[in-house]
Amino acid sequence: MTAASTAASTTRTQVAIVGGGPAGLMLSRLLHLAGIESVVVDNRTAETIEHTHRAGILEHDSVRLLVDAGVDRVLRDGHQHEGIDLRFDGVSHRIDFEDLVGASVWLYPQTDVFVDLHRARTADGGDLRYGIADTEVLDVLTQPRVRYTDAAGARHEIVADLVVGSDGSRSVCRSLVEGATQYFREYPFAWFGVLVEAPPSAPELIYTRSERGFALVSQRTDAIQRLYFQCDPAENVEDWSDDRIWAELQARLAGEDGLRLNEGPVIERTVLPFRSFVQAPMRHGNLLLAGDAAHTVPPTGAKGLNLALADVRVLAEVVERALGGRGGRGDRAALDTYTDRALQRVWKAQHFSYWMTTMLHRGEGASDFDERRQVGELTSITSSSAGSAYLAECYTGWPQPAVRTSRG
Amino acid sequence: MTAASTAASTTRTQVAIVGGGPAGLMLSRLLHLAGIESVVVDNRTAETIEHTHRAGILEHDSVRLLVDAGVDRVLRDGHQHEGIDLRFDGVSHRIDFEDLVGASVWLYPQTDVFVDLHRARTADGGDLRYGIADTEVLDVLTQPRVRYTDAAGARHEIVADLVVGSDGSRSVCRSLVEGATQYFREYPFAWFGVLVEAPPSAPELIYTRSERGFALVSQRTDAIQRLYFQCDPAENVEDWSDDRIWAELQARLAGEDGLRLNEGPVIERTVLPFRSFVQAPMRHGNLLLAGDAAHTVPPTGAKGLNLALADVRVLAEVVERALGGRGGRGDRAALDTYTDRALQRVWKAQHFSYWMTTMLHRGEGASDFDERRQVGELTSITSSSAGSAYLAECYTGWPQPAVRTSRG
Repeated sequence: MTAASTAASTTRTQVAIVGGGPAGLMLSRLLHLAGIESVVVDNRTAETIEHTHRAGILEHDSVRLLVDAGVDRVLRDGHQHEGIDLRFDGVSHRIDFEDLVGASVWLYPQTDVFVDLHRARTADGGDLRYGIADTEVLDVLTQPRVRYTDAAGARHEIVADLVVGSDGSRSVCRSLVEGATQYFREYPFAWFGVLVEAPPSAPELIYTRSERGFALVSQRTDAIQRLYFQCDPAENVEDWSDDRIWAELQARLAGEDGLRLNEGPVIERTVLPFRSFVQAPMRHGNLLLAGDAAHTVPPTGAKGLNLALADVRVLAEVVERALGGRGGRGDRAALDTYTDRALQRVWKAQHFSYWMTTMLHRGEGASDFDERRQVGELTSITSSSAGSAYLAECYTGWPQPAVRTSRG
Repeated sequence: MTAASTAASTTRTQVAIVGGGPAGLMLSRLLHLAGIESVVVDNRTAETIEHTHRAGILEHDSVRLLVDAGVDRVLRDGHQHEGIDLRFDGVSHRIDFEDLVGASVWLYPQTDVFVDLHRARTADGGDLRYGIADTEVLDVLTQPRVRYTDAAGARHEIVADLVVGSDGSRSVCRSLVEGATQYFREYPFAWFGVLVEAPPSAPELIYTRSERGFALVSQRTDAIQRLYFQCDPAENVEDWSDDRIWAELQARLAGEDGLRLNEGPVIERTVLPFRSFVQAPMRHGNLLLAGDAAHTVPPTGAKGLNLALADVRVLAEVVERALGGRGGRGDRAALDTYTDRALQRVWKAQHFSYWMTTMLHRGEGASDFDERRQVGELTSITSSSAGSAYLAECYTGWPQPAVRTSRG
């Protein structure tokens, strides 16, 4: 049901993309390269997105997708990580990705991915509309339209063949999928994340299980570290002085090797909530969902951004087939394959994120048995090349699903 | 504290073994082969043990231990299994152990292991005392003694250098380890186990996850099947007719491949409880614990008997070193290594048993998310050769821990 409205402008395009974060921009870029027009809208300003710190690890196929999309700064400014450390009982155990599965990941902040894609899409003449308001998505079962109000208060309309909802974990598009099933799991803890002015304490990520709870040592630049530790979801960042934060982090990392973190001023502190969520199906008529709009994972497996980009890779292909690409004939049946193809990876990633979380965090009311069993699992994984390879394969990313032949 | 008593007989031996199941008999046999004397006592009769159905899967190193001990009927009468099936969403996925890790397991009932070891130890002149009562273990920190009452009511005493408690999950020896820590976990379900007169429905085990709960198809002989399905721990076997049992099993195994179980009369039905338990340390002075006396696992990973035999392998070695073997000089420091060496495997096996259990059973109050994540994990494992190899390695058994150099 929509009220009649008079639009200040009406734009006709092939794909309207609601949400201009990395997923939406990547899709717009891939479609452009395939000769398909799109318009991107986002309530946030580009500056806001550029300054919202998020994930920092890209799977090898995510890097390949960026490079394939002509956005390759990651290869110069990113840091290739050939493994991670799993640390427990005060000892680090390296999981050597290159050695185990012949793949790496890249440390490259999501904010940089956004900046790169935004620059590329601006340069290639993309129609990007940030800082708008009151977005409405209408008539997705027939002739989809997106309406919004611009910064000057004028109302605009976009008429499109397809609408993609890549509008994040507070998606408005998600609610338009009638009869969808929502799957979710809450966790009794959160991450306390800090940015600190000090050079990296380690060349690669250290995932740490300690009796005080989980901690993660990561990096951002040569002068800035990104560190996290498990906390109560209700934790107040104001209660944590720099000294208290450093004492807690050092205690969780302490071990017989004498590992010490490089300390420095804490320049940002945030509590990151933990939630597992999936909505299925990911398509309703001419509306398709991608990334956080359809699923969120806890951050332990570093899968959030990678999963969004994997969705987009599949989505770009099915949209191209559905709309016919550069002069082709459309095969709308391609759209029917999207949910199943995307969800197969989503559920593997959901499991991996849950697994890394439960293997490394202190559970609510965990018994002594649970604590020892957790160490038994970490021992089992790190002492087995098969176990380590399985973890490495999940972390660096599963192969892209095979392209299916069109039914048309 | 012990009351003074006059024994009808006093026997002097090197090792008193309390508990004459497979673990106790295997230890007695290995010690005999090393020239060390022992006496085995058990409250049960040999006939009772022989007719108590238990586990049926032997790891390759358990088979090797039997063969090394001169007990090799398993190679003729056992069935080598080169893999298992993991079945979910109505489709079976083979985990090919030989292909993945170059190892097999053997289907060979625990009752047969007992019969073989009992026969061997009787033939080699072993001192085995079954069907006794009122067993007491005394003075384990100084000069250990075991006292018991024989079938005729006479009281006897065994004086030994060491006492081994291999007296199962209701161990009396366990309570003598002062200051021990007990770790445990209860599960909200049990297994309904049946023996049925019908030929095997499959050549190897089928571990099945269904929305109705877990089921396991296994075998016993060419004419008898061993089948299990997840049930409530309070389930009453009297409430389950043959028809009801078959309907439930067929429903849990049903799938698009049309798999049907071979039906026949149900000749035994039992509810098997689920519990994870570890007591540490496994040694107190001159008392050492082995097998279920120190730890129990849920049956899903088929680890119970194998873990007991792995304990015994380590135990035979440290006892031999401590007592000096055939004419050697004793190195009591060897006993100090027992707990750590045994527990490393125990905690890996505890984790594996927990993992197989939680991956395949329907959890109490499992959400739709949990159900789909479970399938996500099974998909992840079965579609990955690394994941499958990790499971195969755990199932077929980890390599024996390296023998450490004596500290003496």
